[in-house]
Amino acid sequence: EGPTVLILPGEGIGPEVVHVARDILEHVLDRAGLDAAISEHAVGRPAYERTGQWLPDPVRDKLDKAAATPCGAVLFGATADEPIGELRSRYDLFANLRPARPLPALRAVSPLRPERLEGVDLLIVRELVSDVYYGRRRTGTDAGRRWAGQEMYYREDEIRRILRCAFQHAEARRRHLTLVHKANAIPDVFGLWLDVLAEERPAHPHVEVQEMFADTMAMELVLRPADFDVIVTSNLFGDLLSEITGAVLGSLGLLPSATLSPTGFALYEPVGGTAPDIAGTGRANPLGTIGSVELMLRHTFDAPRWADLLAAAVARAVESWRTPDIAGPEDKPCTTEEMGAAVREAFDTL
Amino acid sequence: EGPTVLILPGEGIGPEVVHVARDILEHVLDRAGLDAAISEHAVGRPAYERTGQWLPDPVRDKLDKAAATPCGAVLFGATADEPIGELRSRYDLFANLRPARPLPALRAVSPLRPERLEGVDLLIVRELVSDVYYGRRRTGTDAGRRWAGQEMYYREDEIRRILRCAFQHAEARRRHLTLVHKANAIPDVFGLWLDVLAEERPAHPHVEVQEMFADTMAMELVLRPADFDVIVTSNLFGDLLSEITGAVLGSLGLLPSATLSPTGFALYEPVGGTAPDIAGTGRANPLGTIGSVELMLRHTFDAPRWADLLAAAVARAVESWRTPDIAGPEDKPCTTEEMGAAVREAFDTL
Ligand SMILES: CC(C)[C@H](C(=O)O)[C@@H](O)C(=O)O
Ligand SMILES: CC(C)[C@H](C(=O)O)[C@@H](O)C(=O)O
Repeated sequence: EGPTVLILPGEGIGPEVVHVARDILEHVLDRAGLDAAISEHAVGRPAYERTGQWLPDPVRDKLDKAAATPCGAVLFGATADEPIGELRSRYDLFANLRPARPLPALRAVSPLRPERLEGVDLLIVRELVSDVYYGRRRTGTDAGRRWAGQEMYYREDEIRRILRCAFQHAEARRRHLTLVHKANAIPDVFGLWLDVLAEERPAHPHVEVQEMFADTMAMELVLRPADFDVIVTSNLFGDLLSEITGAVLGSLGLLPSATLSPTGFALYEPVGGTAPDIAGTGRANPLGTIGSVELMLRHTFDAPRWADLLAAAVARAVESWRTPDIAGPEDKPCTTEEMGAAVREAFDTL
Repeated sequence: EGPTVLILPGEGIGPEVVHVARDILEHVLDRAGLDAAISEHAVGRPAYERTGQWLPDPVRDKLDKAAATPCGAVLFGATADEPIGELRSRYDLFANLRPARPLPALRAVSPLRPERLEGVDLLIVRELVSDVYYGRRRTGTDAGRRWAGQEMYYREDEIRRILRCAFQHAEARRRHLTLVHKANAIPDVFGLWLDVLAEERPAHPHVEVQEMFADTMAMELVLRPADFDVIVTSNLFGDLLSEITGAVLGSLGLLPSATLSPTGFALYEPVGGTAPDIAGTGRANPLGTIGSVELMLRHTFDAPRWADLLAAAVARAVESWRTPDIAGPEDKPCTTEEMGAAVREAFDTL
């Protein structure tokens, strides 16, 4: 009995990219002789239209059960804020890992000059269940004028666990950690981040630690992306910074993510959103979702060699096949399905 | 009797770049035959070390007086949060204008491929006296665990005036306005922004309006900077987005800014900060500050033709002179002072 994997296609381009990625997941597991209990469930808009619930009760029950096993996992397509925010929060999916490394064959896709991409290999560790996203909300009217407030809020333990997670990844990588904050303008919240960082540092003497303002980081990611290894930050800043790395690579459709809970339960999803403008056209790039399957093989299945093989298959497939977002002026763009088939074929020849 | 101009060099590279920019301001005014009452005052760390005040009382008095005249202005170098936050708030300097247009001679400085820069000419309109920067703060300890909260907060009138300002600029430019928000994750605050936007739109039927999530905007600024004209947003998002435009141009040292109060009192400062690592080395780029003088000539002196002339002088100067941040591998970098002299010389030959 292997891991329980729930497939939640979601909406927009979600179902299309998940379909292709699920196919590849099953193909790899099959070849690797790995077991898994896989099932698929509607959430988000399609579920809402049928049941009146963004996250229907039966799906929530299944998720509750999977989250209670040591190696439950979700492969997620895309939804708007409903129910992704609830999922993250309900299962305490606090550690969002967003790795970014350019594929050699796709250098030309990046808006950056090729020399700036040399050596880029970074990991954004984004806190995902706190910050202004989940802070206190209030609205009102004062002398006839409306106002609204939502609190950016962090507790020391929330900060500590994400920093520890980031330190662990830094230890296993190039031992460089950048904490991104904005203590010059938001001193209480990010002062606390800096205090907790100071407390955690001594336990990791071999990790070089750097602090950087969020605005400076936004700039440096574009100017010098190769200078960073692990970048750890709050929910809101992590949201913006990971889209910048998507831009640096040339397409958000390339970026995978893994989000871990303290118990090991994990959710895998592409960084990109529902992209309603291209949903149903076969133009969506499935590589961010396939990359998320790679992360699932690594973390949930503890099968790093099969993950590496899948990564190699992707690198090879993009030498000849490209969805419109990553196609050059001379390339004939392929469809979502064709991209998936190309990865599977490349995998079989490795 | 012309405008009252207070020069506040600040700290870090502030004094160096302001020195050069003041020189140019006086030179231009002289040649243009324009009057001004110019005086210089220490604020920030240098003031604090001498007087124990980041913004000494006598300087505050002078600022109060200047702010009460119809055309008072400040040329600001750089400080940390003290006293810039107080200045912005005390004089209600709510509309921060950050234009970005690549100089033809500096195309090679951008990390972007040259074709991506084609046609870039944008203006970020950043709200500057509200948001989480000035929201309610609270800290505490709960069961032995510290926590901190700062509220992201906006009132409808704060939103309305910055949107109106942005619409005005859009009318005078290419009539395209992008509102950047994050209503999918911070619905109360940015829901209010969207409501006020809907109320203001009918008054500007000729402006094409677009809404965009802040994370998407961060990506698009790198991928497609030429697609935007006026971008209006909240204080915090504006901070990150303007640094991204700095990166797109290749150096933050190139970006000027003007910040206007409702009465017309204005503060001009480079977008870059104190850069303590290069302070005192003569490596600082004065062009962001000289560009701020250009904006001062436009807004405070109402002398657009002299502003255009100064802009032309800058464009010419960088054909041969470049500080280290914008020097190519083949260029011999010049100093802050040499860059200033080159601009003045170019100005004299125009
Ligand atoms: C859909 C939205 C609420 C979400 C976020 O901001 O977290 C998305 O942008 C993401 O990055 O996963
Ligand atoms: C110094 C800091 C508080 C400031 C800000 O965040 O507003 C700076 O980054 C800026 O953009 O002017």
